[in-house]
Amino acid sequence: MADRDKEVIKKLEGIGEQLLKQIEKSQNPTVELPVRTLNNIFFDKKTGTIKLGDKTSERQFLNVAHSRKFMQTALVAAEIKKVIESKATVSIRDLYYALKHTIEGTQENSFESQEESDPVIEDIEASLDLLREELHLAASAKGIIAGDVQLRDGNDSIDLSKMGSGGWSVPSNVEPNKIEFKKVKAEYVLFIEKDAVWRRFNEDQFWKKNNCIILTGRGQPGRGERRLAQRLNKEFGLPIQVLCDADPWGMYIYSVIKQGSISLSYSEEKLATPSAKFIGLTTKDVETYKIPKEVTIRLNQLDVKRLKEMEGYEWFQKKEWKEEFANMKEKAYKLELEALSKKGIRFITETYVPRKIKEEDYLP
Amino acid sequence: MADRDKEVIKKLEGIGEQLLKQIEKSQNPTVELPVRTLNNIFFDKKTGTIKLGDKTSERQFLNVAHSRKFMQTALVAAEIKKVIESKATVSIRDLYYALKHTIEGTQENSFESQEESDPVIEDIEASLDLLREELHLAASAKGIIAGDVQLRDGNDSIDLSKMGSGGWSVPSNVEPNKIEFKKVKAEYVLFIEKDAVWRRFNEDQFWKKNNCIILTGRGQPGRGERRLAQRLNKEFGLPIQVLCDADPWGMYIYSVIKQGSISLSYSEEKLATPSAKFIGLTTKDVETYKIPKEVTIRLNQLDVKRLKEMEGYEWFQKKEWKEEFANMKEKAYKLELEALSKKGIRFITETYVPRKIKEEDYLP
Repeated sequence: MADRDKEVIKKLEGIGEQLLKQIEKSQNPTVELPVRTLNNIFFDKKTGTIKLGDKTSERQFLNVAHSRKFMQTALVAAEIKKVIESKATVSIRDLYYALKHTIEGTQENSFESQEESDPVIEDIEASLDLLREELHLAASAKGIIAGDVQLRDGNDSIDLSKMGSGGWSVPSNVEPNKIEFKKVKAEYVLFIEKDAVWRRFNEDQFWKKNNCIILTGRGQPGRGERRLAQRLNKEFGLPIQVLCDADPWGMYIYSVIKQGSISLSYSEEKLATPSAKFIGLTTKDVETYKIPKEVTIRLNQLDVKRLKEMEGYEWFQKKEWKEEFANMKEKAYKLELEALSKKGIRFITETYVPRKIKEEDYLP
Repeated sequence: MADRDKEVIKKLEGIGEQLLKQIEKSQNPTVELPVRTLNNIFFDKKTGTIKLGDKTSERQFLNVAHSRKFMQTALVAAEIKKVIESKATVSIRDLYYALKHTIEGTQENSFESQEESDPVIEDIEASLDLLREELHLAASAKGIIAGDVQLRDGNDSIDLSKMGSGGWSVPSNVEPNKIEFKKVKAEYVLFIEKDAVWRRFNEDQFWKKNNCIILTGRGQPGRGERRLAQRLNKEFGLPIQVLCDADPWGMYIYSVIKQGSISLSYSEEKLATPSAKFIGLTTKDVETYKIPKEVTIRLNQLDVKRLKEMEGYEWFQKKEWKEEFANMKEKAYKLELEALSKKGIRFITETYVPRKIKEEDYLP
């Protein structure tokens, strides 16, 4: 078994050992867990990431309000240990089904739905300070990558510059003990919101001509894509440039890549890339790049509401972002990446992005 | 330019030439298009696929009810020609934006939304009997594949048995002029509904141990995955075994892989694989494989409604399917692939599928 797996199992066993000790001392068995609600989550200006505070709460066996969750916590911890020992990785849905059973002598199920098991997994991740991947749990992975990178994944040597029109499908677990970078020639990572746009960049061999890596998470990226970007940034110093739609949703995707998300606050130090930059689109580009107004889209009520939320986030309190928000409100339009096709099929790969990079015209 | 591209351009130019002739003869410019509504779609028992009938309708320039669509048809045909000539592939969203403009001297836009341009693309596909891929239009592609297959994609030699934990991301266009199979050692294709289940099969190296190809379309597969399966079936005689949830949605996914879909009826001869078999899950498996009842899910109203629709389809009028439908209704439950995890993490890869294949226990 890998050393890291042994350490993780030790941590999991720690939960059980503590409970045993409490029982032996005739104490009420109790697990202490970090509070994961909004009032314990903050933006750490020093690290530039969203973080979990140090408030904790107790989950007690001899407390009618706690006992169900207490049982579930013990069940999940035990099952994860079993999964690691069997050297497998399972999805959180698998875990739910594996643990679902009717408790003997009762009509009650251990878990009624996955909505009950998922938060317990998150509790364990947060309290043991472990990544989901270290618990051998797979998140959904939907990203694609290509570029001048050679890596090792198990017994396979994989050359991301020889993936044809398809690309390599990013796995859920890209931790160093799974994915080992062998050679990274690329100079930066272009993190693209949309799959269809990624395909434009891949077809035009943008990554080869511009010596970069192109990566997409198909919408809101998963943990695998974000961790991969973070590792390329930390281990090889590659800047991460994010290319999204000019709308509040695209901006939020950027925000998650850079600072992290509230729901994963306890893992963001290992997922977020605070030095990431926003390459575009912006509503200001409409004038700079003479994009015809016909391809802009009027902001709807939902956009306006989301924009207001975005303006309130601590990490968006920067001059450049305030200007962009103000411009979007004033013009009352948004813009998709595909709208650049109005200027020509390859405008985005041959003009827009190269010029942005040359002029270092990014939002912070 | 590739020969096939030249042929396609000729077909597109045909539309324009016909219009020109009509104008020269002072006739009302007219395009004739296949009717794509339900009353012109049928199940062809001989080929085993859904097909478009031979009813056609006319779209005339000098007809107030037609003129907008007439203009759009001409615009789309012209733009596609441009795309092919520039050797690019674009998404249907790109195409929409590229064509969106305010018509000179009016306040009217050529297209108000993509919902206007997409059907026009389908009209052109159907009337010229061309695949979307041959028109250089990319559909969304989200599938993953692994197995003992070597192929050529542009300048890249790709070995699908060396894709690590990620897999190769299936491109949108897998036509023979793009993807050339070099060596296919695998003996069958396991077409898996769900991404997370595919990862279980990949992690357990099922494809290596069982000499097969594992392919997923992440839910309802896209054209790329279906065409790839069809090519492996037609060109190499590989049987296609489909593994889905035991619910009306999983059964429908199987049905689309095998017979095709109503919305793509005009292309199904090139996408469907009529010899595909349904390996599971079935509700009957619950007894055969002693799956605990706790992991079954009660059918809801929507399931029951969808099940009734499924029972009505001509291609499901087979003894085995009627039995499965009856059993599902009687038991009033459905079942997800992940539910097999209750029997052990690797039950699905080490027991369930191998036994099904050994016993040839498929639904037709």
